[in-house]
Amino acid sequence: MAKIVAGFRSSYPHSTPNPNTPASAAHAIVERQMSDSPESILAALGLELPTLPAPGGNYVSAKHLGPVVYLSGVISANTAGIITGTAGLDRTIEDGYAAAQACALTQLAVLRRELGSLSAIAEILTVNGYVNSVSGFADSPAIINGASDLFVRLFGEAGRHVRAAVGVAALPRNALVELQMTVRVKE
Amino acid sequence: MAKIVAGFRSSYPHSTPNPNTPASAAHAIVERQMSDSPESILAALGLELPTLPAPGGNYVSAKHLGPVVYLSGVISANTAGIITGTAGLDRTIEDGYAAAQACALTQLAVLRRELGSLSAIAEILTVNGYVNSVSGFADSPAIINGASDLFVRLFGEAGRHVRAAVGVAALPRNALVELQMTVRVKE
Amino acid sequence: MAKIVAGFRSSYPHSTPNPNTPASAAHAIVERQMSDSPESILAALGLELPTLPAPGGNYVSAKHLGPVVYLSGVISANTAGIITGTAGLDRTIEDGYAAAQACALTQLAVLRRELGSLSAIAEILTVNGYVNSVSGFADSPAIINGASDLFVRLFGEAGRHVRAAVGVAALPRNALVELQMTVRVKE
Repeated sequence: MAKIVAGFRSSYPHSTPNPNTPASAAHAIVERQMSDSPESILAALGLELPTLPAPGGNYVSAKHLGPVVYLSGVISANTAGIITGTAGLDRTIEDGYAAAQACALTQLAVLRRELGSLSAIAEILTVNGYVNSVSGFADSPAIINGASDLFVRLFGEAGRHVRAAVGVAALPRNALVELQMTVRVKE
Repeated sequence: MAKIVAGFRSSYPHSTPNPNTPASAAHAIVERQMSDSPESILAALGLELPTLPAPGGNYVSAKHLGPVVYLSGVISANTAGIITGTAGLDRTIEDGYAAAQACALTQLAVLRRELGSLSAIAEILTVNGYVNSVSGFADSPAIINGASDLFVRLFGEAGRHVRAAVGVAALPRNALVELQMTVRVKE
Repeated sequence: MAKIVAGFRSSYPHSTPNPNTPASAAHAIVERQMSDSPESILAALGLELPTLPAPGGNYVSAKHLGPVVYLSGVISANTAGIITGTAGLDRTIEDGYAAAQACALTQLAVLRRELGSLSAIAEILTVNGYVNSVSGFADSPAIINGASDLFVRLFGEAGRHVRAAVGVAALPRNALVELQMTVRVKE
């Protein structure tokens, strides 16, 4: 069982201080144990995978090639709809962190649909995070940590991935974050 | 033989309405049949693969690794030269759609040169589309559909790919679209 | 042994002329010979691989999958710190070229740590270069050449890669360039 430990966890230790980020933000710490399934850890964190829309358009959510699953970029959304906005203008780092986590949850929902269970994931390989931001916004890594931190909570060492975080001029439907990634599945 | 069917095809059903896009734009619908080669469908669509410039500089157009071909990003161009401009400023969604299709044609020309024939392509794996756009431009997917739609017309289900579409501050030579992709070849 | 030849080498022959770039910039030309190790060529060029910071955060510098090494994006830095700024605003193409070369050196340092020696690299596969730039900056390829040129000097034909160069609104820590890449290792 995943064990919830009350306490504070700094989610972006390497970012420059941001006066707009509430210093009191507290996250439950969940200690991952070897026997925990990613699904049980999600439940312990109080997180749910979103319902996915029927795939539309001339592209797909996932492609398999050998042990690798390539995933389409997904934009930040939750049950209330698209998480929109621009980092450095009308959105804080904390807003972006939550948006990146929402992207990660959507990708995990895609993977569960593709693979049947998140336990079929051997490791997270690559993550490319795009942040809708004003020119010169320097903290995209602190935002994409919202996805990276979740992957490590769920998969431990296997959740550590290579990544790139960049700030872009615009994202589909004015989303705050877009996340594109690849994983390796167990054989 | 590919069969041309007169009629209207909405190329970007998910985009927000754009008053600058002519509602009367009509595309010939080409019904793909199993026996059609991608080349014959291109001909039926009245599309030609461009002549490629001699590769220059310290990078290459394509790299092979096992069954995967990685392609360099190409910028939007046609026989008149580079298709330049900025979506949301001096270019419409329809302009961008045509530019993305032009990028796709260039990539197909690269693949034909690499593989001898487009029939050697087993599937389109990944597409990353970059749109030169103003801040907050929300319709990059509708633009990148210009590439995605063509791939599905030519290859059917095998043309469906994973993709990400983002709006960027600037592209080489002020191009309107840049497209980077990978394909899997038949073995 | 690598042989140093004095002379001028145009690093970005395809770029539009930029009045801010000193025309007198001269680079030593190093002729690569089959017997040269990448390390000996670096030494002949007077270049050193940087010391890497201890990896931190919930992502890693490199992931291996079969013969492929995926590398995290690295931002431009040298011994003086992060190379910051915006192309087209307060930085020239030549500044960007040096920043891209610095990114390449950091990636090579990561690879040496991962592989023991740069001689374990079979080929450079893919390079994605992101340039912190003003809207409409047209010369990102000339900047990313700073990385591409170095790879070809060190590895010859095996250093030629596929790539994409784009201009983005913002990069981590206000870096001028970010470089993400993959390589294939010898088996």
